[in-house]
Amino acid sequence: MWRPALPPAARRPRAAAATLLMMQTAKRFQDVGLSLIRQINALATAQSVNLGIGQPNIEPDETLREMAARAARTGSWHYTPNAGLLSLRKKLCAPNGFDPKSEICVVAGTQEALYAIFQAYIDPGDEVLVPNPGFVAYPTLARIAGGIPVTYEIEPPAWKLDARAVLKKITSRTKLIVINSPSNPLGSIADRAVLQEIAAAGPLVLSDEIYSEIWYDAPPPSMLGMGANVVVINGLSKSHSMTGLRLGWIFAREAVMKPILVAHSYIATCASAFSQQLAEMIHDNAEWNASWLASVRGQFRDQREAALYSIEHELEAKIPPPTGAFYAFAPVPACDTTSFAKSLAVDEGVLVIPGVAFGTAGEGFVRISFAAPVQTIGSGIERMGRYLRAAAR
Amino acid sequence: MWRPALPPAARRPRAAAATLLMMQTAKRFQDVGLSLIRQINALATAQSVNLGIGQPNIEPDETLREMAARAARTGSWHYTPNAGLLSLRKKLCAPNGFDPKSEICVVAGTQEALYAIFQAYIDPGDEVLVPNPGFVAYPTLARIAGGIPVTYEIEPPAWKLDARAVLKKITSRTKLIVINSPSNPLGSIADRAVLQEIAAAGPLVLSDEIYSEIWYDAPPPSMLGMGANVVVINGLSKSHSMTGLRLGWIFAREAVMKPILVAHSYIATCASAFSQQLAEMIHDNAEWNASWLASVRGQFRDQREAALYSIEHELEAKIPPPTGAFYAFAPVPACDTTSFAKSLAVDEGVLVIPGVAFGTAGEGFVRISFAAPVQTIGSGIERMGRYLRAAAR
Repeated sequence: MWRPALPPAARRPRAAAATLLMMQTAKRFQDVGLSLIRQINALATAQSVNLGIGQPNIEPDETLREMAARAARTGSWHYTPNAGLLSLRKKLCAPNGFDPKSEICVVAGTQEALYAIFQAYIDPGDEVLVPNPGFVAYPTLARIAGGIPVTYEIEPPAWKLDARAVLKKITSRTKLIVINSPSNPLGSIADRAVLQEIAAAGPLVLSDEIYSEIWYDAPPPSMLGMGANVVVINGLSKSHSMTGLRLGWIFAREAVMKPILVAHSYIATCASAFSQQLAEMIHDNAEWNASWLASVRGQFRDQREAALYSIEHELEAKIPPPTGAFYAFAPVPACDTTSFAKSLAVDEGVLVIPGVAFGTAGEGFVRISFAAPVQTIGSGIERMGRYLRAAAR
Repeated sequence: MWRPALPPAARRPRAAAATLLMMQTAKRFQDVGLSLIRQINALATAQSVNLGIGQPNIEPDETLREMAARAARTGSWHYTPNAGLLSLRKKLCAPNGFDPKSEICVVAGTQEALYAIFQAYIDPGDEVLVPNPGFVAYPTLARIAGGIPVTYEIEPPAWKLDARAVLKKITSRTKLIVINSPSNPLGSIADRAVLQEIAAAGPLVLSDEIYSEIWYDAPPPSMLGMGANVVVINGLSKSHSMTGLRLGWIFAREAVMKPILVAHSYIATCASAFSQQLAEMIHDNAEWNASWLASVRGQFRDQREAALYSIEHELEAKIPPPTGAFYAFAPVPACDTTSFAKSLAVDEGVLVIPGVAFGTAGEGFVRISFAAPVQTIGSGIERMGRYLRAAAR
């Protein structure tokens, strides 16, 4: 660390053009750039009203801080096993009967989980079924691994996952089906029977359940245990507002897990020992955890109401209330929602994500994150409404 | 998190054989299994004398614990920018003139750095020059990315990197040259002139400098600033005995960094915010840091002496003292060091890593880690000597 200063002559040498040619980006990353979400967020300033955010507007409470300080004071900072601390794995497996030795892998957040799973299973030419609209990383990760993303459509206005829409896209080349419930960006929850039908279809299923603790009417059905072909990923990022602590996990039966664990070991070695120890403490503190989750849901319920009220009164749109996650996918009368979102960010300082960022089926919609204070939500949507009305005149 | 228990009927369903065929591992991971290092370490028991270890036998001191507790109590747990906290990047760039905005990326440890760099640059068929003997992950990561690892030899007994050995392996298909100084497993340090000659050769160079703070006579020369084609990786894992906190960084000029940053963002999103904040505190606490590093080096110097003494007296081998890292690469009179290391682990409970784990040029040697207490080192090498003498009778 902290290297001594270089002599001035050694600074910023310039390579010859010929040398630069030798530094060509690998094909898998040549067409991968900043996502539309990042492009919009890059327009944010300190004054922006940000409804483009993908993480809870919640800070750790005193109990969580106390646990973290204890983990920092007493925990081991050495490598953990690649699959994570066995004690944590046992706790995560206790309620569902998965084998802590071979059927769970603790990872550095669900993004790393996704990368490891795609790397472990997707060969060039393999088809990966991804939701449209759906989280932007799925098709990109499929392409990075050499696969071909094939979209299945989710339909407005309810945006409920339909098994037939998925099943009709299965071919002999389908290697993986990606399911995300509760859905980012749709805020909808898939029915258990639909998930079971998809699990029974045959191909490997990756069920991204990172929003599973953010629900409003009833907890979302999990795909855990729905089949030997089902891989479930989850983590603490959204439920405990710890997106920066990079702690997630993968459940899969042993045969399916094996190459994922190997991929994970080469990608990340192990998840942060500190985050793993904190996760154990959270688990052990069951009473606090239950009340924390209830409070998180309560806060998001209030923010959801604020968003729905403003969407109805300012955007003059009535959308079915989101049943999970913290996003409202709302229609806007703009023929190009990307330009709309960009001008809205620049002219009004209001950030929302254009629906097409999540696939072609998102055109005509914007994702409004209500992971923001009620006043911010109200003011942001009001300004968006005014901006739309001014444009229509 | 903490999902409710599943009904018994839903537990452990068995997929039909046809379904399992659809779950074939991607080709890139089909031949990647547990490394020989992990196979040996899997033979460890609580009673083992473990000289196979790749992390410092050092615990955080009170100051480090205090900083960690403060980071846990006060730090943000939200996402950091993909490239890391700008404040941390500024501190890491201050001594060397790299641009904190575009020429550094904070990562979740150097393993993630390696994965991101290989993914960003290696196309199928690209040749990657790797040291033989050298760290096991390099050729494997090359293969995972579709590349062809081509070894360059490092010669006993001094195990000093020779520029000619590297340069003569460069072809028109050479995409990346991996350099590791101080070397795991050799404990040697490359000369500045040798590194400069390699940097000037043209292809992209990945300089893995994770052991840069563990040295005995003089600090190892860094490749930082040796060319626009040079990528340097480093981190806190070895210098601060924080292998489990997963904090590393990559230095590269902007054009080279761009695809690496994109790869990193898809692989890991960002490094742990907690670890990043702790790294900042360590940096700010310069006086403590200097004395910490001196103490780490002092401890390893003592342990190195113990290892050298026992190697000379118990193994009857005189090896040049390692100048960096915490490994002695010692010859053993066994025709198959893998079988030898395995039987030694099983029969005597002494763990060392067979040299072939690091490449064909390592046959006839074992890597003895002296990241262990002096007594453990003495007893382990003594038992190894006795075992060798018994086998020779």
